[in-house]
Order: sequence, then C-alpha cells, then structure tokens
Amino acid sequence: MIDDHAAPLAVSMGEPAGIGPDLILRLFSERKGGEVPPFIVYGNAQFLRERASRLGLSIEIVGARPGAAGVIFPHALPVCDVEGDVPDTPGEPQAGSASVVIEAIAAAVADTRAGACRAVVTAPIHKAALYGAGFSHPGHTEYLAALCATDGVTPLPLMMLAHEDLRVVPATIHVPLHEVPKLITTELLIETGRILSRDLAHRFDIAVPRIAFAGLNPHAGEAGTIGLEDRDIIAPAVAALEEEGIAVQGPFPADTLFYPPHWRQHDAIVAMYHDQALIPIKTVAFDSAVNVTLGLPIVRTSPDHGTAFDLAGTGRGSAASFRAALKLADRMAEAGR
Amino acid sequence: MIDDHAAPLAVSMGEPAGIGPDLILRLFSERKGGEVPPFIVYGNAQFLRERASRLGLSIEIVGARPGAAGVIFPHALPVCDVEGDVPDTPGEPQAGSASVVIEAIAAAVADTRAGACRAVVTAPIHKAALYGAGFSHPGHTEYLAALCATDGVTPLPLMMLAHEDLRVVPATIHVPLHEVPKLITTELLIETGRILSRDLAHRFDIAVPRIAFAGLNPHAGEAGTIGLEDRDIIAPAVAALEEEGIAVQGPFPADTLFYPPHWRQHDAIVAMYHDQALIPIKTVAFDSAVNVTLGLPIVRTSPDHGTAFDLAGTGRGSAASFRAALKLADRMAEAGR
Repeated sequence: MIDDHAAPLAVSMGEPAGIGPDLILRLFSERKGGEVPPFIVYGNAQFLRERASRLGLSIEIVGARPGAAGVIFPHALPVCDVEGDVPDTPGEPQAGSASVVIEAIAAAVADTRAGACRAVVTAPIHKAALYGAGFSHPGHTEYLAALCATDGVTPLPLMMLAHEDLRVVPATIHVPLHEVPKLITTELLIETGRILSRDLAHRFDIAVPRIAFAGLNPHAGEAGTIGLEDRDIIAPAVAALEEEGIAVQGPFPADTLFYPPHWRQHDAIVAMYHDQALIPIKTVAFDSAVNVTLGLPIVRTSPDHGTAFDLAGTGRGSAASFRAALKLADRMAEAGR
Repeated sequence: MIDDHAAPLAVSMGEPAGIGPDLILRLFSERKGGEVPPFIVYGNAQFLRERASRLGLSIEIVGARPGAAGVIFPHALPVCDVEGDVPDTPGEPQAGSASVVIEAIAAAVADTRAGACRAVVTAPIHKAALYGAGFSHPGHTEYLAALCATDGVTPLPLMMLAHEDLRVVPATIHVPLHEVPKLITTELLIETGRILSRDLAHRFDIAVPRIAFAGLNPHAGEAGTIGLEDRDIIAPAVAALEEEGIAVQGPFPADTLFYPPHWRQHDAIVAMYHDQALIPIKTVAFDSAVNVTLGLPIVRTSPDHGTAFDLAGTGRGSAASFRAALKLADRMAEAGR
C-alpha cells in the first residue's frame, strides 16, 4: 500500500528562458534545511542539467515517475521528462520549446488529478512564446482550469494572493479599470464568496471562514453619495451569502481594510479589482506572496512573479516567493486529512 | 520687531460634537514634552473649558490674539474667540454651533494669510451639520481654497497624504470609481505635477523633487493591452512635465510602486484615484498619516480622520495623526527660511 502523504508536489518547469528553472534548482539544493517539501519537476532533464551547470550547481538529475520521487528526492532531482528539445538560452525564449512548456503543465495536472502527486506548483510562463504552439488561453490560470474540466464543464478559477494570514482575492483581474464597475455583478460576487468559503474550509482547515468584501468606491460609496455599486451590487451579494450561512461582512471602505488590526479580523478579503488586492499585499510582502488558484479539483500555487528574463541564468533573484509557494502547496494538500 | 518664527500655528476647532476638541486639549496638555509647537485655537473658549472639565483635564484657557499666543502658550491655552454659543454635546452636532465652526476656519485662514499665524491646522468638521448654516462647499479643502482666492481666482487645491517620507497625492478624490477614467486628463495631471513639484521644493525643502506617477490600469496597462489610459493620457503628462524640467517618472504599475524600496526612490507619488493612494498609506500608517493641502498660498494640514462622534468627550481615540499634523505644519512653515 502506498502512503500517499509521501507523494511529491508536481512542479511544472515554466518558461526555460526565464528564472523559473534557476529557482527550482536552487530550492532543490536547499532541500536539506527541511523547508522544501519533496517535488518532481515536469519538463526536460537535459535542459535542467545544462542550466544547473551554468549556475555552478552540482545537482544529479534523474528521469523518474512520481511514485519514485519520494525515494529519489533526498539524493537527486527527479524529473518527469516531456518529449521535445529545450535549448538553454537564458533571456531568449525559443519557439521550439513551447510544446514542452505546455505539455509539462498538462502532465503535472494529470498526475495530480490521478493522485500520483499532491499538488501543482507552476513556474512562470511567457504567454507570447506559447501562442505559436497553439496555446490559446488568456493565461496560466485559465489553462489550468481547462485541464481540470470534468464532463465538459470548466470550473471557475479564483485567484488568491496569500502572505501568511493575509489572503486577498480580486473579483476581477487583468481588465482595464473602466470595465471593472460593469464586470462586478452580484452573481459573480456570490459565486466568488461560495468558492472562497468552501476552499478556505477544505484547503486551509478554517472551520468557519470569515470573509470580508471591499467596497468599489471611496469610503465604500458613503451610503450611496459616492457611487451606487457598493449599496446596489456588493451589499446584496453579502446579504445573499450570509443567508447561505457564510460568515461574510462588508462592503468595507478599502483604504482602512488592509490595516493589520482590521484585516486580521478576516480570513480572506474579496477585492473588486487587481490593484485594490495587489497594492496591499505587494506593499507588505513584495517578494514572498504566493499566487493560489482556488475553485479547482486540485491544489495549485505559483510564485507571484514573472519570468524575469534579465535575471535568468545569472543565479540572482529572490527564491522567497517560489519557496513560499512550495510550502503553501504542501500545507494545502495536507489540509482536511 | 516681531520674530515671526514665534508666530503660532492656527488650529481651527472643528466640529464641537466630534473628537477634534478632545485631541486639541490633550495635545496642549502634552506640550511640555516639546513635541507640540505653540498654537492658538480658533473657536469658543467657554466650550473648550467645558470639554476640558468633562475630560478631567486641568487647563487654563484664555482669550487671545495670535501676537500674544507665544507668550501665553507655556502657561495657558490661547483661544481666539469667534462669536456665537457652542454647547458641549459630545456625539450630537448642534445646528446652532455651525456658524462658529465655519467662521473659525475663516478667521484662522485670514490670520495666517496676514502673517500673524504660521500655518493652519484644521480639526475635523461634519459637513452635514454645516449645510444649514449656508456652507455650500463639497468639503473642507474646497472651503479653504475659496478662502484663499485672490482677485476672484480660486487656487486648485491638491490633497496629499503624508507619513514620514511616503507622500501620496490622489489626482481624483471623492468620486465614484467609474468616473475616474473620464476625469483623468493629461491637463489635470500636468497641473498636479507642477503644483506638487513646486510645493515639495518650497514647503518640504526638497531641492529637486522626484515625482512618480502610478498607472491607472493593472500593470500600468501592459503596453496598451490592458487599457489605453496609461499610454495615451498619463505617459504624455509625464513627458510634458519632464520637458518642463521636472524630475518625473512613470506611469508605474501601482501594485509594486508602494513596496518601500520602490517608493523610497521618489519624494511623492501621484495616484490616479482615492483608494490607490489611501490603501498603501493607511496600510502602513493607519492612525498617524497627515492630510496636507498643497497649492494654497498658506500651509494647511489636518489629521487624517473624521469627527469620531462615538469617541468624542470620552478621552479615548488616538492623537497620533493630530500630533503629526501639528509637527508637519510647523516643519512646512519653516521650510525655505
């Protein structure tokens, strides 16, 4: 009988020309400190050997399947090879590598859905480099949601940024600010609140998750004198979720909600748009916040940064966010056991 | 010959039913620590005696004109009396007090413009209580700007929130979020940048002020793929200001701009809307940020909080922001000397 606690995390390699592979290799070489949970990389073993050599890291890299990863990890980096060639060209994305990048994510998700891995941690991708290989998703998260479709139904993925106990969920993400007021609907907020409440319970072991909604307008609209959405769109969503038994409050003026004694009263905060969520978390945790996708049948985290082409292959750049992503994925995968 | 360095700060009493008078009295009683610069209160001496008695503060309160305030301040609180009755009813604004509140601000501004006081520090007002007495301005700041009109021309006031060296200026303030993209014009941003640069030099003794503009959209529009305002409205304002010799940069993605190593590269940041400016400053300095009005012929600061009716008359509530407002007004009045 297999002890599935011993299953590894599935780490997708991400853009080979970016900083992801550097950080994966560096974190593997730090594993003896005990802070890095066992993982298997989905990507290309030969490329990783070349990058390790470029970085001056002496790491044995072996082809493996997830079942063997736990035994291998203390001695060597297990890599689940995806077919294709990946040249080592830091800072210069190669069209020829795109299919490996795309398939590595798919394989990591498939093995995690099958239970062979405990969670997926994705290294950053460079979307523009993937479009030529047929990648047609707006982003990483949407691709993961599509890979998690069941019976043709794609789940609604929710983006959460987390740093210790500060968790923020933007209800809208990469859209122009002028579209935000139109996109914020009571239905969207209710669905967001439901997924968030469910996943805080199941993935974070929070028995009764306390959720706060930020207002859209200054002072949360000040009783309708500075915009009506807070009263007419957000407040009804809060009321409906409360009716479902979810511990939800708001809308609160966003400017004072992120003062630590205030946000600590809530397990997560639903922000209305990208900067409202990301300004507070990046202000307090610039390089150690973790990007978490909720709403999927699997656990998925990722570092909260991009490919950093200028740093790839140099050995520079902070591994704090990637390390935090591995640790949080580990904790989330254990939740509820 | 009068040493005008010895002129007092002019403190307008604000809403008598609010927390302002409590904080004024408490800060006066702390003056021996040397952190509180000499000030004279514009308001009602009898009311202040009653409030002090309610709070259990033994303070001598004497009627005075600004010229005598410096001599009186070590021994007693100088008050420039404004005609009218002001009952002491914490938490319950009285229509009858409105004219004293309004005239106190006008007298403080007049004496400061005349050079008898060095700067104006305003205690919070409650606008709704003033409308019955003919107050027709959208807010405190607009009233101050109107009082500073010269030859019928009202200056454009600029709101700045300051905490130590973090200074943020929202280019739009108390407007619904959906109006923000329409209100952000290249002309407004150029005028904002000019006033800010001039006042950072004159009021903060910064020889070459470095100003950063935040973007409007996520990732500052990501080269026009997430909204066009950053490229088409903000960038041209930055270019125009640069052409005028002002040290200005941006637009920067707002989410990473308030990470301390980033904002510290700038003397002030122009944000596009209320929450973009106030979330970062309230997150790091909830009760000690100061509201500063730039663009006026006088220095004006105020605590960055409201009337807090529930705390008035109780002796509770933080005086940190009011104390910081007095100290900053003092420093700004000394700048350039």
